[in-house]
Amino acid sequence: MIVPRLIERKREGGRLEEAEWHELIRAYAAGKVPDYQMSSLLMAIFFRGLDRGETNALTDSMIESGGTLDLSHLSIARIDKHSTGGVGDKVSLILAPLIASLGVAVPMMSGRGLGHTGGTLDKLESIPGFRTDLSLSEAARLVESIGCALIGQTKEIAPADRKLYALRDATATVEVIPLIAASIMSKKLAEGLTGLVLDVKQGSGAFMPDPNRAQALARAMIQLGADRGCPVVALLTAMDRPLGFACGNAMEVRESIDALRGAGPDDLMEVTYALGAEMLMLGGVASSPADAWRMMRDAIGSGQALEKFAEIIEAQGGNPRIVDDQNLLASAPLKSEYAADRDGFITEVAPRAVGYGIITLRGGRRTMEDTIDPSVGFIITAKPGDSVQRGQTLATIHALDAKGVREGTWALNEAITIGDDPPIALDLVSVRMTGAGIEKWERPGV
Amino acid sequence: MIVPRLIERKREGGRLEEAEWHELIRAYAAGKVPDYQMSSLLMAIFFRGLDRGETNALTDSMIESGGTLDLSHLSIARIDKHSTGGVGDKVSLILAPLIASLGVAVPMMSGRGLGHTGGTLDKLESIPGFRTDLSLSEAARLVESIGCALIGQTKEIAPADRKLYALRDATATVEVIPLIAASIMSKKLAEGLTGLVLDVKQGSGAFMPDPNRAQALARAMIQLGADRGCPVVALLTAMDRPLGFACGNAMEVRESIDALRGAGPDDLMEVTYALGAEMLMLGGVASSPADAWRMMRDAIGSGQALEKFAEIIEAQGGNPRIVDDQNLLASAPLKSEYAADRDGFITEVAPRAVGYGIITLRGGRRTMEDTIDPSVGFIITAKPGDSVQRGQTLATIHALDAKGVREGTWALNEAITIGDDPPIALDLVSVRMTGAGIEKWERPGV
Repeated sequence: MIVPRLIERKREGGRLEEAEWHELIRAYAAGKVPDYQMSSLLMAIFFRGLDRGETNALTDSMIESGGTLDLSHLSIARIDKHSTGGVGDKVSLILAPLIASLGVAVPMMSGRGLGHTGGTLDKLESIPGFRTDLSLSEAARLVESIGCALIGQTKEIAPADRKLYALRDATATVEVIPLIAASIMSKKLAEGLTGLVLDVKQGSGAFMPDPNRAQALARAMIQLGADRGCPVVALLTAMDRPLGFACGNAMEVRESIDALRGAGPDDLMEVTYALGAEMLMLGGVASSPADAWRMMRDAIGSGQALEKFAEIIEAQGGNPRIVDDQNLLASAPLKSEYAADRDGFITEVAPRAVGYGIITLRGGRRTMEDTIDPSVGFIITAKPGDSVQRGQTLATIHALDAKGVREGTWALNEAITIGDDPPIALDLVSVRMTGAGIEKWERPGV
Repeated sequence: MIVPRLIERKREGGRLEEAEWHELIRAYAAGKVPDYQMSSLLMAIFFRGLDRGETNALTDSMIESGGTLDLSHLSIARIDKHSTGGVGDKVSLILAPLIASLGVAVPMMSGRGLGHTGGTLDKLESIPGFRTDLSLSEAARLVESIGCALIGQTKEIAPADRKLYALRDATATVEVIPLIAASIMSKKLAEGLTGLVLDVKQGSGAFMPDPNRAQALARAMIQLGADRGCPVVALLTAMDRPLGFACGNAMEVRESIDALRGAGPDDLMEVTYALGAEMLMLGGVASSPADAWRMMRDAIGSGQALEKFAEIIEAQGGNPRIVDDQNLLASAPLKSEYAADRDGFITEVAPRAVGYGIITLRGGRRTMEDTIDPSVGFIITAKPGDSVQRGQTLATIHALDAKGVREGTWALNEAITIGDDPPIALDLVSVRMTGAGIEKWERPGV
């Protein structure tokens, strides 16, 4: 293998063979191919792309660089949900216990906040004592015993992907659909899943605001799953506004507990049920969306979903009493109301401005080394289209100090716009994509 | 300066500002920007190019990374010649003393063999004792005292270019016209030239066989020179066959001495005079090509050009007696004639096959660490278009041992083709390019 020749072939629009991908990634993970050759190849891939076979080979070789969650001895279905990243997106915290309580195992691997978006790991770690750094064998035992494990990308899983991702971040080669698809799927497929549901965000707050590119990413991941016997279903959901009211780590855990009690905001519940229905159908325990929605409402109504959440928290070292006593969660010392400065319609609540506002409040990271305070953030009850009056409370800022309150106010000034006419918002869940094709998503009549 | 943002901007087709180029190259030379970011940028440049201002800024910043040959106190013109690389191309060895003997200073910086092409430094070092590793101040003194210095790219000159070139070689980003132009011109402009003549090779043995790309490279270098007050003239010359008869280091020195005695092969002299005329006109000592050709023939006829060669050799530590006694040059132990295997016309003498044949004979390098034997190579008297008969000698192989003779024979079997009809060969010198445009080259009527 002469690496410059491989780079040259890709640069000229050719393809690398399956065996070449395996040799290349193995050598890269072992430090035998230097970063400077890999980054040149990555930039050539930005311009030339990867075909389906190459994307498969890259994904496989990244999986093989590490260990996998061996759950093949389990008889029940194992379904994960993955989101491309949003603001106020606490759906994973609700879905994991909800779906696990209905007899489908959920081995879920999540990430930390990235850019303006929040991360499930950061939210979970705002639960006192909660450990996300489980080993693969610990996670496998939890999936077996309680039907769920909520973990981060351990050092054991796809180390080549971790090394490659850090390089992409430093070399402006992140935004490449086959590389994104291979990166996500290498981790997901290492979880030993029998199915995967994707929440592909679109709109101004998504990493890929362009719906065509968002769909192309979903298609690439659906193909990767199909080629490995792991069916993938994708829903395109709106990220032109935050999801739910709470934006900030501990505040989002509170809202998730509310949701598991049956008191979640409407938009959050709609996205949660839409994704959960796909998980239950892929898992073979629901026969239709309507069936699935009924099962989920019942599991919330009966308390079994919240009970499962407490069970998961306890199994991962956290304090399960938080589900009954939210005072056990961190709370910011200052809370300041944010009011409308005019009459009119809410025309925008911009997720990026809210997300960067949380970072300013020290609830998110500028660099991977930053420590964060879980207590801060925003409760934004105003939604695009709402008719509001001057002086009406739109949001509450939770901050560490007066400076935080000022900065939170500036962030909301930038995020929230009031105009004369209601805006045209994206459909909350717009499109459903499977291996069979793409269709308009319909809310089941229940 | 956030490097990934710069890479991203270039990737999206934007440009880097002059100050950004300077900061980037300064930081890269100092080891503060890692190779993996630079190689990603280089690959983005492969796809997006550099505009004239960016190429200028890159060139300037590479010059500034090192020292320059300060010759501004000299009143005489200082002209160098640069070739894009060929086989049998010993023109520099003839031109440097010839032009210096006519009152134009020649500060000449050359390279080593690269791929299938030979290098002037390797040829010079086949002269016993000859030193090419002069310091900048030693070179400046020689230019001042004898009108010529023949040196390599010292560590003092454009170190950022040297570092970048090694990276390009390892990352499949060599073949990028603005990068090639900036690399060559950063070294040439550091020589303190008042003019530069380019020999841009075209044809199967050229690094850039495509004449359109060869012309684009010439244009980029002409622009870089023009923007810095260093006029550049380019001639496109044929490299669809070796130049002259001798191919191999010491053998080419012998042929150069023959040429300086007035006994050089016709094709070699034509290219030498064509390039030399441009140097004399740029240097202001000849008023027309016809004038220049007469001056050069006189300098050779009178012996003053050969005398200047001996003077240069002595000044750089070599044995000047080689110009009178060629037995002082290395000679291979085995010499074997190579004959035509049929009647017909020579249809091809392929320079790449000849060049790689010299490497096989151990007269060229596979890696920069290889040592070479100066004595080996080929004398190929057959030229495309010659009518030959079966059994007629076409070439002589100069080898170290019987294995070398066999390998040299194979190389010539591959290089030399005999057919039924004479081929259509490229014009030896086809086109002349200056800042004013492009014109057909005409041999002066002398």
